[in-house]
Amino acid sequence: MRPFLSHPFDDDKLKEECGVFGVVGLADAANFVALGLHALQHRGQEAGGIVTYDPEDGFNSARRFGYVRDNFTKADVMATLPGSISIGHVRYSTAGSKGATAIRDVQPFFGEFSMGGCAIAHNGNLTNAAALRRELIERGSIFQSSSDSECIIHLMARSIQKTIAERIKDALRRVEGAFSVVAMTRTKLIGVRDPLGVRPLVLGRVGDSGWALSSETCGLDIIGADFVREIEPGEMVIIEGNKVESTRPFTPAPSRFCIFEQVYFSRPDSIIGGRSVYETRRQIGVELAREAPVEADLVCPVPDSGTPAAIGYSQESGIPYAMGIIRNQYMGRTFIEPTESIRNMGVRLKLNVNRALIKGKRVILVDDSVVRGTTSRKIKDMILEAGAAEVHFRIASPPTAWPCFYGVDTPERSKLLAATMSEDEMRDWIGVDSLKFISLDGLYRAAGEAAGRDPKAPRFCDACFSGDYPVAPFDKIEEGFQMKAAE
Amino acid sequence: MRPFLSHPFDDDKLKEECGVFGVVGLADAANFVALGLHALQHRGQEAGGIVTYDPEDGFNSARRFGYVRDNFTKADVMATLPGSISIGHVRYSTAGSKGATAIRDVQPFFGEFSMGGCAIAHNGNLTNAAALRRELIERGSIFQSSSDSECIIHLMARSIQKTIAERIKDALRRVEGAFSVVAMTRTKLIGVRDPLGVRPLVLGRVGDSGWALSSETCGLDIIGADFVREIEPGEMVIIEGNKVESTRPFTPAPSRFCIFEQVYFSRPDSIIGGRSVYETRRQIGVELAREAPVEADLVCPVPDSGTPAAIGYSQESGIPYAMGIIRNQYMGRTFIEPTESIRNMGVRLKLNVNRALIKGKRVILVDDSVVRGTTSRKIKDMILEAGAAEVHFRIASPPTAWPCFYGVDTPERSKLLAATMSEDEMRDWIGVDSLKFISLDGLYRAAGEAAGRDPKAPRFCDACFSGDYPVAPFDKIEEGFQMKAAE
Amino acid sequence: MRPFLSHPFDDDKLKEECGVFGVVGLADAANFVALGLHALQHRGQEAGGIVTYDPEDGFNSARRFGYVRDNFTKADVMATLPGSISIGHVRYSTAGSKGATAIRDVQPFFGEFSMGGCAIAHNGNLTNAAALRRELIERGSIFQSSSDSECIIHLMARSIQKTIAERIKDALRRVEGAFSVVAMTRTKLIGVRDPLGVRPLVLGRVGDSGWALSSETCGLDIIGADFVREIEPGEMVIIEGNKVESTRPFTPAPSRFCIFEQVYFSRPDSIIGGRSVYETRRQIGVELAREAPVEADLVCPVPDSGTPAAIGYSQESGIPYAMGIIRNQYMGRTFIEPTESIRNMGVRLKLNVNRALIKGKRVILVDDSVVRGTTSRKIKDMILEAGAAEVHFRIASPPTAWPCFYGVDTPERSKLLAATMSEDEMRDWIGVDSLKFISLDGLYRAAGEAAGRDPKAPRFCDACFSGDYPVAPFDKIEEGFQMKAAE
Amino acid sequence: MRPFLSHPFDDDKLKEECGVFGVVGLADAANFVALGLHALQHRGQEAGGIVTYDPEDGFNSARRFGYVRDNFTKADVMATLPGSISIGHVRYSTAGSKGATAIRDVQPFFGEFSMGGCAIAHNGNLTNAAALRRELIERGSIFQSSSDSECIIHLMARSIQKTIAERIKDALRRVEGAFSVVAMTRTKLIGVRDPLGVRPLVLGRVGDSGWALSSETCGLDIIGADFVREIEPGEMVIIEGNKVESTRPFTPAPSRFCIFEQVYFSRPDSIIGGRSVYETRRQIGVELAREAPVEADLVCPVPDSGTPAAIGYSQESGIPYAMGIIRNQYMGRTFIEPTESIRNMGVRLKLNVNRALIKGKRVILVDDSVVRGTTSRKIKDMILEAGAAEVHFRIASPPTAWPCFYGVDTPERSKLLAATMSEDEMRDWIGVDSLKFISLDGLYRAAGEAAGRDPKAPRFCDACFSGDYPVAPFDKIEEGFQMKAAE
Repeated sequence: MRPFLSHPFDDDKLKEECGVFGVVGLADAANFVALGLHALQHRGQEAGGIVTYDPEDGFNSARRFGYVRDNFTKADVMATLPGSISIGHVRYSTAGSKGATAIRDVQPFFGEFSMGGCAIAHNGNLTNAAALRRELIERGSIFQSSSDSECIIHLMARSIQKTIAERIKDALRRVEGAFSVVAMTRTKLIGVRDPLGVRPLVLGRVGDSGWALSSETCGLDIIGADFVREIEPGEMVIIEGNKVESTRPFTPAPSRFCIFEQVYFSRPDSIIGGRSVYETRRQIGVELAREAPVEADLVCPVPDSGTPAAIGYSQESGIPYAMGIIRNQYMGRTFIEPTESIRNMGVRLKLNVNRALIKGKRVILVDDSVVRGTTSRKIKDMILEAGAAEVHFRIASPPTAWPCFYGVDTPERSKLLAATMSEDEMRDWIGVDSLKFISLDGLYRAAGEAAGRDPKAPRFCDACFSGDYPVAPFDKIEEGFQMKAAE
Repeated sequence: MRPFLSHPFDDDKLKEECGVFGVVGLADAANFVALGLHALQHRGQEAGGIVTYDPEDGFNSARRFGYVRDNFTKADVMATLPGSISIGHVRYSTAGSKGATAIRDVQPFFGEFSMGGCAIAHNGNLTNAAALRRELIERGSIFQSSSDSECIIHLMARSIQKTIAERIKDALRRVEGAFSVVAMTRTKLIGVRDPLGVRPLVLGRVGDSGWALSSETCGLDIIGADFVREIEPGEMVIIEGNKVESTRPFTPAPSRFCIFEQVYFSRPDSIIGGRSVYETRRQIGVELAREAPVEADLVCPVPDSGTPAAIGYSQESGIPYAMGIIRNQYMGRTFIEPTESIRNMGVRLKLNVNRALIKGKRVILVDDSVVRGTTSRKIKDMILEAGAAEVHFRIASPPTAWPCFYGVDTPERSKLLAATMSEDEMRDWIGVDSLKFISLDGLYRAAGEAAGRDPKAPRFCDACFSGDYPVAPFDKIEEGFQMKAAE
Repeated sequence: MRPFLSHPFDDDKLKEECGVFGVVGLADAANFVALGLHALQHRGQEAGGIVTYDPEDGFNSARRFGYVRDNFTKADVMATLPGSISIGHVRYSTAGSKGATAIRDVQPFFGEFSMGGCAIAHNGNLTNAAALRRELIERGSIFQSSSDSECIIHLMARSIQKTIAERIKDALRRVEGAFSVVAMTRTKLIGVRDPLGVRPLVLGRVGDSGWALSSETCGLDIIGADFVREIEPGEMVIIEGNKVESTRPFTPAPSRFCIFEQVYFSRPDSIIGGRSVYETRRQIGVELAREAPVEADLVCPVPDSGTPAAIGYSQESGIPYAMGIIRNQYMGRTFIEPTESIRNMGVRLKLNVNRALIKGKRVILVDDSVVRGTTSRKIKDMILEAGAAEVHFRIASPPTAWPCFYGVDTPERSKLLAATMSEDEMRDWIGVDSLKFISLDGLYRAAGEAAGRDPKAPRFCDACFSGDYPVAPFDKIEEGFQMKAAE
Repeated sequence: MRPFLSHPFDDDKLKEECGVFGVVGLADAANFVALGLHALQHRGQEAGGIVTYDPEDGFNSARRFGYVRDNFTKADVMATLPGSISIGHVRYSTAGSKGATAIRDVQPFFGEFSMGGCAIAHNGNLTNAAALRRELIERGSIFQSSSDSECIIHLMARSIQKTIAERIKDALRRVEGAFSVVAMTRTKLIGVRDPLGVRPLVLGRVGDSGWALSSETCGLDIIGADFVREIEPGEMVIIEGNKVESTRPFTPAPSRFCIFEQVYFSRPDSIIGGRSVYETRRQIGVELAREAPVEADLVCPVPDSGTPAAIGYSQESGIPYAMGIIRNQYMGRTFIEPTESIRNMGVRLKLNVNRALIKGKRVILVDDSVVRGTTSRKIKDMILEAGAAEVHFRIASPPTAWPCFYGVDTPERSKLLAATMSEDEMRDWIGVDSLKFISLDGLYRAAGEAAGRDPKAPRFCDACFSGDYPVAPFDKIEEGFQMKAAE
């Protein structure tokens, strides 16, 4: 994942796997979807796809590797996507998948049923997809992709319901895990969130005639839509013409929104629960300054994702905020280091220390999270090499000790630094003067829960920190994953 | 220009036209030059070129449109650039030049003389190039490009001196204006700055064997070079093996470094005169808070170029610093708005207001400069639409009222807002509650001149603010440009 | 179709829709398939695909628009296709299909079944595919493409048979029309021809270990394979290791090989029924000279497809053979005529008359077929403009009066010149001194049937000439196509 | 060179190095030049360039690697080339030149002089270019390319003449060797041929207003121009408006047109000396049948360049003509053989023997020339492997024993088979039953000289066969080339 105010060492970060967007009731709908996906690009940079429907031309789709701005801005591509209803998807593609074949894995997926076609885009991860896939193949389904999301379309094809909306319900009642789904038929735009509401999904109004569904509110802003409300956990909305029909197809459950969306995934200008994500992150910095103060000369963010928390830390502590590390804005993914003579300068391609500023200073570095820890070591090296007197790391999330199975790409548990070391061991391994993480309670407070985390009924999914998985990861357990022992 | 901590509305900014870089004494020199140019990309994004020399393969060059990271990272391109001496250039190409032919204008330029080949890369602008060109054509020179810099190579070809270094001196004594030149022969790396030292150029040491010349120190940092010193105004250095020979080929003159490099062009992590550019910019914010205080709730930068001054303003005023505007990091140049229905949303593609934060607040916006003023209006619209109670603009440079002729792309004078309006008129035209620019004296103080600007002997070239041109722009005057009347 | 010794006005020709190729028992099998497809490129130029299986990497595929030589020669593409078993397909894509989506229609198609994966490549056309598709969708199948061939894979998925080979039989017993299929599992290479044997398929031996299946023998030649035999109409071969198992899954029927393969589709160096296609075509020229002699000075082919018949005509008639029309070998598909001033020179881009040769001569032009007739008019114009005294057209096939439904792209019936005009009317419409087609009996004689065509049991499918369809075109009749009234 | 009716083994052929084309007095002139260059593509396939002049836009140019049809058909490229006067050039680029730099060598070359701009395109080779280049550099000229043709533009820049036309004369009087030049100013189209007239150049009329210059008449045909006449050896034409002014700037000399243009370079549908090149080549076959008869069953061309001579041989000998070897029309240059397992099948990618036809037959193979001889061996292998009883090679040119220095790419002398072996030795080395070349006298007879070659005043330049160089190759002699000893 490379989120807004992203982090320069993406390969040492958790990665969101998708963003979804859809509109109905707008001429040249694909243009709006392209804009929405551009605003959601931080949720998936590897590939994107758009589907449209036009009464004359039928369903059309385009799926491409690369950024939205490089593909879905071309006149020749957009000309193939006519119509006033459209959905789209951006995705982070699974590492290791072969370039030559993986375009098949790019959503939206499409199915032709006897009552018409349907396209779906899915953010999240299904925890029983492997089992469902085996069953569907046994019964004669042909899978096009290696994506777990494709199960949904095959379950729909097998449904005996007479409408596509009913078939979606049928299908989603069979799947487990996290799903925020945007779907479309020839006339209807449909949005669904799983009962726990792990992944976000919001509804917007565009002018007098149009509606939009988006993973985050920033997708509404870019097309000038007014934010109406969040789709609720367990809710399905079916939008046609001026009517938004809401139903509750699933057994109700207490909601468990992903807390990492607050920490890192969502864009800072998106609004969750009525508050800007930026403000929550700044508040994390404030909490962190209270929980883990230290004497120092400067508070510097690890750019760009550590910035809001660093501002909060500075404001609470009174220690001046400064841009001690400058990020190269022209950095792409492809800058290779071609020869032996210039190896190991990877870090310099992305970041440069503001030497004249840092020299001789006691520096607090604020970062959003620690995954493998390798990046923290490199940054510490740069800062010390530039002559800092002391280096103190402050982390805007608790130790990441458990993998996520609900739509986030995490290393296997043994690779997570916090799964194998105590805080002190981590400090020594990274090699800094001090290292402190915000507490889980502090994080909950920053996210608006004044009383901190209620262990009996936590408001968020915080499995990556706590090991408390709200849905048992069926496929992974079958593969041998060990859940945390009950305490 | 799209500098570090750049501004999202480039077309309403002054644009630096070049960055130069060179190394000698390093195996696979072109790789180092590619890295250096990557660090200098903010000085020119349209195109880049690299020349190398290898005893076996002779001189080779590659010149491409686009970013360094997209061209000079490819194995097939780099394989054509062998050798241990190399120079390179990044450039901002003049608007309107035809794509099909403009590759000829990409530097370095190369000339084969009877004593061997020479490549040169030039940052700056020659103010008598048109006149020289006419004369050279009359005498039988064939120009390859429309670039003024090409005069230098033809003047060298016409010189009767026996060495390339002497021919460079001959040529540069004929030209007027601003030039920081990096050149190479088969064995020598050469750097020259014009007598006023308008554009920057620095010298670095790489390990035991190598030397580097770079427009800014950030180019040295990326290759792990140690900063040795700035090339002085009027100095020429000739580097061969371990020897750096320094000469002074020009009539001495008081130096006039470009003050806009301090305000906007140079990277914030570069060091000029022993101080980080970031610190100078933060200090501008401090001065601005003193000169133009206002009661408000938040200080927000116009990202990213207004950030350091906004931090300074916040620190001096005690008004909290906040990210009120978020920049889309995936914004490229090519996002077109294909249909009528979504026109006029240009601003939303690049920026989004942090609505939940801004609503009901009195906001101070800190921007680096005002050129045409069109951008300021758009940003004001966004902020007000998001519900801000008051909007106060604070500008980190004096009013830009005169064009630059020394290597910066500026609109013609009549397009500069400050050339036609008073400060109050500008405030009303932009439509904000208040608008204040830092004074020229305040800017000099922030840049380290405690006494402010000495009108008899100003330390910097500040013609864009003052109309005081240190070199008369010969070609432009011939075309009809009116200098400021003597006071 | 753009066959070997092809015709410059492809859009006025019948078009073959596919070529298939497969190998087993050869390291880097995909390389052999690429070569085989290159040799079969004349059977489909728009797109191609290759699937391989490797025990370590599983099934892989690459599908691309464009020529084999431009896609399947690239190291990065071929590196994604490891394994010692592979099949491939080249296709002519249906006009009007949108470029952005049609890659889904490029074969081979792949299905994952509970007993393993299977890829299939199909040459021919299924005449009941629309009906089957409706039924399969009703039962829950999700179609990936608009191709009729995809029915086969879904029928296989629905089969209750335990092996893939048995499922293929199950599936092919349900389909009607023409099919030469090459399929592969993890270990088996499978070839099947429909009971009538409309499309060709041959078996070859490669060294000691390998086997190949190819649409034509020229595909065997290019990889150095020995021609073993033709797969027989109604035969299925299953090749594994050194064993070639042959079965007959279908109700037997008299064979009806496509006679247009002899006239135009197959490569002249391919061998059908023990005789080179070139020789059959030369013999057509001999028969034509006997049936339709005329006094003239020169016999000229319409290049390149008319060449063999022109040679035969010249040899039988004694009138000298000459290259009166020269084809531009650099002609691609993309040469557009950008402005009004040079419109209507399309013909000159492709052909030029050998003026000095033609002037004042009585010329016999030998062409392979007449479809719409528009091309014949243009060529006549060129020849007359160059000063020919007389122009006599001789056509190496009977009048094309009926569309093909077995894998050839033909205009609808009303567009076929011979469907609406008599031979004399065609002569006048084209505007030549004489126009003669070979008789259907003459064509049969040239193809080795000394007695000509037996109307009770014709050896070939000649529906395009006779309207005698060996399989009723079910889908087309449902759409309203009128069969020829029984005589 | 890859001429019309070209030969599949280009790397074993002499290669023409250029084609030139120009028009004046036609709206959108560049479109006509693109068509003309397309017709001349056989004279140079590696790259092409077009220059235009428009009063509003000035001079524009586009230079590209690859085929005309792939570059100069694109709307975006052609839109950069406005104007009603234009010239162009296609070229065969010297093997080994680096891709990254060689675009500089693509013509037309352009020079800006005080009296205006001039573009020139040159077919041929200057034999004193190296010496001229040294002199020009000494005097201060900067060369842009490694091309010898660039000397012309620098000589023009140095001329003291007042008009461009006079400067062209000045410049061309200084050069030696072969040149057919097409040049343009803002209003004039200029054509010049060297005194010997080694390379062709013809004049055509387009409608009422336009004129064209082309290397061959086929370039006139494609734009619908009427052939007016050949530009004569030593003639210069200056075309402006409706006036064609002819002058003779050089000392007169007996003409020596390149005889290899007749044998291989020119297109068969071009007209030279009033006769089609095709007819001359057919006549070569007739002469060859008389000079070197042999009993056989079939006469087969090595496609495509041997075709006209094979037709002539068949007609004279009465032995049937047949297509014994079929060329793969989809063969590009890029088909690589990726793995060891399929090496050495290069020949099969390009050609396939018509096995059923050849088996057991005595075959005469007619080829246009033998250079290194390696191709002849490969073809012989294929024919024998297919079961031919006897193989007799008949070559439509005399033994190629000397390199060309007038614009043709030939291997160095030691690589020419005929420079080191007698005819019998060549026959044995190639391994055929007989090998015969046409005599030089026979070739002259076929080319219209009834009396054969007059050794005192040969009508053609035949240095590649005879070693009789009409212009001493100055630069090459300086490099050590040994001329043939006087007899």
